[in-house]
Formats: sequence, structure tokens, C-alpha cells
Amino acid sequence: MTNKIPTRIYLSEDEMPKFWYNLRADMKDKPDPILHPKTLKPVTSEDLAGVFCKSVIEQELDESTREIPIPADILDFYRAYRPSPLIRAYYLERALDTPAHIYYKFEGTNTSGSHKLNSAGPQGYYAKAEGFTSLTTETGAGQWGTAMAMACGFYDLKLTVYMVKVSAEQKPYRKALMEAYGANVIPSPSDITESGRKILSDDPLSTGSLGCAISEAIETAVKTDKCRYVLGSVLNHVMLHQTVIGLEAKTALDKYGIKPDIIIGCAGGGSNLGGLIAPFMREKLNGSSKTRFIAVEPASCPSFTRGRYAYDFGDTAKTTPLIRMNTLGSGYIPSANHAGGLRYHGMNSTLSKLYQDGYMEARAETQIGVFDAAIKFMKVEGILPAPESSHAIKAAIDEALECKKTGEKKVILFGLSGTGFFDMTAYTAYNEKTMSDYTPSDTDLKRGFDSIPDIPQNVCR
Amino acid sequence: MTNKIPTRIYLSEDEMPKFWYNLRADMKDKPDPILHPKTLKPVTSEDLAGVFCKSVIEQELDESTREIPIPADILDFYRAYRPSPLIRAYYLERALDTPAHIYYKFEGTNTSGSHKLNSAGPQGYYAKAEGFTSLTTETGAGQWGTAMAMACGFYDLKLTVYMVKVSAEQKPYRKALMEAYGANVIPSPSDITESGRKILSDDPLSTGSLGCAISEAIETAVKTDKCRYVLGSVLNHVMLHQTVIGLEAKTALDKYGIKPDIIIGCAGGGSNLGGLIAPFMREKLNGSSKTRFIAVEPASCPSFTRGRYAYDFGDTAKTTPLIRMNTLGSGYIPSANHAGGLRYHGMNSTLSKLYQDGYMEARAETQIGVFDAAIKFMKVEGILPAPESSHAIKAAIDEALECKKTGEKKVILFGLSGTGFFDMTAYTAYNEKTMSDYTPSDTDLKRGFDSIPDIPQNVCR
Repeated sequence: MTNKIPTRIYLSEDEMPKFWYNLRADMKDKPDPILHPKTLKPVTSEDLAGVFCKSVIEQELDESTREIPIPADILDFYRAYRPSPLIRAYYLERALDTPAHIYYKFEGTNTSGSHKLNSAGPQGYYAKAEGFTSLTTETGAGQWGTAMAMACGFYDLKLTVYMVKVSAEQKPYRKALMEAYGANVIPSPSDITESGRKILSDDPLSTGSLGCAISEAIETAVKTDKCRYVLGSVLNHVMLHQTVIGLEAKTALDKYGIKPDIIIGCAGGGSNLGGLIAPFMREKLNGSSKTRFIAVEPASCPSFTRGRYAYDFGDTAKTTPLIRMNTLGSGYIPSANHAGGLRYHGMNSTLSKLYQDGYMEARAETQIGVFDAAIKFMKVEGILPAPESSHAIKAAIDEALECKKTGEKKVILFGLSGTGFFDMTAYTAYNEKTMSDYTPSDTDLKRGFDSIPDIPQNVCR
Repeated sequence: MTNKIPTRIYLSEDEMPKFWYNLRADMKDKPDPILHPKTLKPVTSEDLAGVFCKSVIEQELDESTREIPIPADILDFYRAYRPSPLIRAYYLERALDTPAHIYYKFEGTNTSGSHKLNSAGPQGYYAKAEGFTSLTTETGAGQWGTAMAMACGFYDLKLTVYMVKVSAEQKPYRKALMEAYGANVIPSPSDITESGRKILSDDPLSTGSLGCAISEAIETAVKTDKCRYVLGSVLNHVMLHQTVIGLEAKTALDKYGIKPDIIIGCAGGGSNLGGLIAPFMREKLNGSSKTRFIAVEPASCPSFTRGRYAYDFGDTAKTTPLIRMNTLGSGYIPSANHAGGLRYHGMNSTLSKLYQDGYMEARAETQIGVFDAAIKFMKVEGILPAPESSHAIKAAIDEALECKKTGEKKVILFGLSGTGFFDMTAYTAYNEKTMSDYTPSDTDLKRGFDSIPDIPQNVCR
């Protein structure tokens, strides 16, 4: 075939975004403020200053600056692996025999294997610039931990990574990769923090969760000199950094005059999805587009589709500020679903608000169906997708097959947030048919909901 | 920094090569012909027809057609993952504080993780086009096997891969990846072929070698209906397909008026190195450039630097035609060096000839020094390199440091042939300091040399 639109659209360095886009600036109804867990008053930058770097706190609390310039040093970091390709899925379209045009923005060409590096670089840079010498964080699938290990290798910072125990066991090579970049990796729950010890005393066989690993990482950061904590998802400053994905994608599509009808992304904490859709959502908010946005989450951790919209803690130990978001409750411990990056009880507050206000749809998918889609995709498009990203593939294929039925030539854009090189245990389980689906019962969910704090705001809205 | 030359140079689809470049057409002194092992006469296409596809035999024996058009279907396959980026190593230059300008052509952005896909695609296509339903091959590091698994997934062909046993053990996830694409992977030596059984009866603990796996794969291809054998290196048709690397690199450099002073590649069977240097070597052969070409091989398998230039078999069972090449003898079993892709006793005949005639240099590097270079590289450039490719990094760093001494602003281009995602066992051994260097003694080499056939051609030249 001779393609008018190239299979892979790369931007030039000049075309790369020079600023991050702050979606909240364009929302008439903004997400509710983060609350201090003791006073139940909106947090101030002082409240957060013992945990996070100053620059990211500013970004977190800034609801009004639309365009936040990317510092030159971070542009320099981005140029080491960006722009990422926007790919026309000609081969998948042919295999599905669909009239739909499918595009995906592929964030897996860097060594960390995912979009996570887009926020790890800035967060490493700010820590260095503010004079800190070490950082702590948590990692689920291992992609955020690897990304932070790379950033800390680049900026010469010490890094301690609390890795969700089930992921550490499923992905020993992820751990080795972080260590190759110089990070100290500790399976969580561990016995070296108070929060870890508490969880282990309640459940000595706990396989861990992101919420639990976050508690351990924050505790260590607060107790260590010249150390801060970094988070790879959920918060708005992370989503802000991830808008490079959507800004690049939009520039690439605009060059060819393409307007997406549907944009799809997998959703764990929401930063990949939010980063992809942000500049397109702007047009929906101002009424100039009718694009549909679809968040895809695992049926085993369904914070959009079965969660509550409430103020909740970000971690299991209930030490973080309160965020109003879609949540399953910080006490919800998801099953050992292989899509480790989607095993989080909460969701970014901006996306939660947009979902509540009807700007976004969501659907939950079970594991085997997601892997069916992944295998179909990889055989024709060549790329081995991460299990997380495969949730978006599943929905994109379903939408394209719907177009086949109706004959509609819709333009579908989805985020292929990462690769599955360190997920071969999961692929082996799929190949050998030992993989199982799991959907929590209402009783399973109740245990989580019971952990949501009973505060006035949760009652009155 | 604001760069006049972008960090990553991508060609547009229109700029991608439409033909492969046959270097032999421009050599006044051509490599010696492949000989039939019984008659010692040059092989004919009929001799090879039971083993290989017809189209690749034509390419193998064609010494005179300079430009061989790439079929439209293969251009289509290439567009699924090419062009690959040519990267200016700004970060490495800064870390080394060298006046040299370093570029690398990065072939690891596809899922197979290396340049191997450039020949796997064509070989899958030709098999399909000629009506075959299955293929056999061997794999060392696993990259060629993965590439063929992807190509066979794409073209819907059955594939059996004999994987060198030591690699299969070091890289269980490589095996899983090939299986995810639908391939049948068998550790070699196996007990299901005559050649495998013979090797196991001589040495039941054999960890295998490429030569041995080749014997098994050829035996299976010849004994199976509608089946052919495919090889991922050494032969000239493979190197021909790999010239897309050098052609793309040259187009990208030409756009910015850059002429490399030194071109470096790792050398196992030679196809990655040959593919990278081919269009540049053309200019050296016609006298219009003085570029230096450096092949880098592991000290544990030094076919250029310590091998003999002689007619030899390509496999351990001595079933293949005879190729005049740099060889350690088909009986040479290399140590379990982690750079599995460089564990082959022989070398492409064209490169061997160019080396003999003084157009190319070679050096051997020990394992730990190679990993030192890999770690230095990955911390600043971000990319996790394959141990094989890290041999080229080692030489590039050494040349750049030499420039630092002399103050010369040389342009260095090297081939970063692949990623190390499936080499974490090796990286872990390096991190934990359990990795060892191995350089064969003269006695070790003698065992290999004794296996080189004693035929008139080897004596008279």
C-alpha cells in the first residue's frame, strides 16, 4: 500500500511542545481541593513541603495557569527519547477489516518501557535543582520505578523504590533493571517501615498494593535527611507532565487535518489517560469538538465503573492528604492481576471530576479478553504491548468492530502506553491457559468502601 | 543545549531505501565462491534449493547486481517499524568530555529488540510467496528467533526454533516471547534430530552452540514437507537485507553533510556490521573516502583477530556448503559468554575478504570491560543496550577518549544493534560481580582449528 498518511508520524524537535498544558485552567467546574486529613481544610504548599519538592507542589496546586513552560533542562531530557511516534494501525485495520481509521501514540520506545519517564525526568530534575540528594517512591508494574531509576541515574540522585511484592515476584528482571541504573529496590510490604510492619502484622502473606507501597515510601522520605518523595501517577502535577503525550499527538494529527472521534486510554491512576486526552478535552470543554473519551480499567480494580466519588486517602496507612476522586477505598487490596500498573484504588481527581460531569466514559475489562486483544494486536502490528496498555487495545478493537457493523469511518486514537518486555510471566500464563479472570463481588468491594473516611464532604455531595 | 543537528534523526517514509545494496558488486576482488562440500566445486542454486527459498539463493549467489529492489510487500513490512532513529550521542559526548561527535544507528526499537527483523521479514515473505508452510531456524541470543517468530506471525507460517541451550536457560522470557508469537522453541542440542543426538552422545552436558543448532534446524527443514530453513546471519543475502541500516544512516548523515571518520559495529556472523558499513565501504572501495571500519568481537570468540581465513563448514555437523571466511573452526565451542549473538565460529565471507584485503580493522574485547561501557552508556543515553551491541559501545568510547587526548573532532558512527531487555541475567551477574572474563588459550583454539577441513583450497591460498 502507498499511504498518504505515513505509518509512523514523528515530529521534528522544533515541533515538540515547549510547555505542559494544565487542563484545570479550562474547566469551569474544577476538581475539589485536596484536604488536609486533620483539619479538613484545603492543603497549603507548606503542608506538602515536607514530602514533595517545591516545584511540583506549585504545579499541583495551580488551577489557573493554562500553559506551564517546560524548563530547558527538561526539554533536554525529553530530547533523549522523544518525540514518541504516532502510529497509524494500518495492519490492525486490515486484520479487523474495519472502515475505522486507528491511530496509537506509542510511549514504549524508551528503556523504562512506558510513558512514566515523562514525569520521572521532571521530578528528578526538580529534586536536583532544589538541593535534595535522594528520593523515595513506590512502583507497581515496575515501569515507574524503572523510569525514576533512569532519571536518578541521569541526575545522580540516590533512589529507594518500594515495589509491590506481587510485582517484584512476577518481574524479577524489572528489579534487576532498576538496580542496573543504581536504585535500591525493596519488596513491599517490608519490615523496615512502620506502615509495612503494620500491614504484615495484619496479614503476613500480603502481596502488597500500590497504596501500601506509597505509605512506606512517604514514611522513609519524611524520616530521611535531604530526601523527598515522588509519585508516578494520580496527582495533577504528574498528569501535567504527561500532557506531552497529548500535545505531541495533537500536533501530529493536526498536520494531517485529522480529528479523532474517539480517544481511548487505560486508566490506573489516570496520568497516561489524562496526558493523552488533555488537549483534546480542552476542545470538548469549549464546545468545539464532540470527541468521545473512554477510560478502560481492569474489572479487578474498577474505580471508575464501580467506585465511589468521595474524599479518600491515597495510601493504605491513611497518611496522605484527602483527594476527592473515584475510589474503591484505600483499604481495597486488588487481586494479583497481571496489569500491575492498574492496581490502584483511586483515580486522578481531574479525570474523576470530568467523569462525574459526563465528559468521559469508562468501561471495565476482564484479563483474558484483554490478552486476546494484545495477541491479536502484536501479531499484526509487531509491538508487544504491556498488559496495562492492552486494556486500551481491547476497547479500540471493540470500537473498530462496531464501525465495521455500522459502516462508519470513525477516527480512533488510543494510547499505547508501554511495552510488555517484563510481563512475559503473564504472557506465559496466557499461552498456557493458566490465567484467570477475576471480578470482585459486591462483598469484596464493601471491605474497600468501608475504609473510605466518614467526613462531612463525603456525605454532603 | 540547542542543537543544530537533532538528537534523533528520523527519515520520512519517502526517504526510506527502495533497494538493498549489494556490496560485492563494487568489489574488484570478490569473496571466494561457496563450495559444495563433496565436489569442492562452486555451489549452484540447485544445490541449495532443498534447504533455502529460491529468492534468497538468487540473492546469495548474485555478485554483480548493485541495487536489488525491495519488493512492495517487504517495504510494507519495513514501514511497520522503520525507519530506525540515527541518534547523536550528545549526552555521552558530554559525559566523556570528548571533542568527537558520536552518532549511533539504533535498531532496537522493534519488539524483536534488534536489527534481525530486517532480514526475518524478507525471509518470511519469500517463504510465503514460494508456497512453503513452515520454516526452521536456530537462535543464539534469541533475537533472531524472536524476529522470525514475528515474521512468521505476520505471514502466518509455522516456525520451529532451535535455541542454543545456554541461551534458553539464561533467557527463559525470550523463549516465552517467541511462543507468544506462535513459534515452537526447542533447546539445542536436542534429542529429536540425528545431529543433536550425536552431539549429546559426545558431550551429554553440552550447552550448545550456534553451529550445532544450525545442524539441527537444517536437518529438520530437509526432512519436512513444504518446509525451508532460514538463517539470520553469516550469509550474504542476510547482510544484503541488513543494508537498510547503512542506507538509512547514510541518507540521514548526508542530509546534514556529515561524513563519518570511523564506523564501528559488533561482529558475530557479521550481518549487522556489514549492513551498517556497506554503503560507506562503497566509497572507500572507489577511493572517495578514507573512513576507518572497526569490527568488535568478544575475546571469547575471536574469529577476526585470532581465527584463520579458510574454507570451513557453517555448522558443527559439517553438513553445510563450505564458505571461505575467518573462522575458529566449526568444532570450536565458545564459552558461555553472555553475548549469545556473538558466539559463532565463523564470519560473513564478504567481510572476511575485506578484512584480509585491509579495508577493515578488528579488535576483541573482554566481557567485563564491555559491560562497564554499557553501564556508562545507559546512564547518560538512557537506552539499555544488548551485550552484543555493547561491544561497539566499548570501541566507540575508546575512540572518543582517544580524540580527547589528541583533541581531534572526529565523527564516530556506531551500530547499536539491539536492546538488553532479555539480558538481565547478565546485567545482574555484572552488578553482583559474579561475571567473569574468558579468553581462550592457544590450546583451546587448536581444538577448533583442527576441525577446519583439510582441502586443497585451504592449503594453496
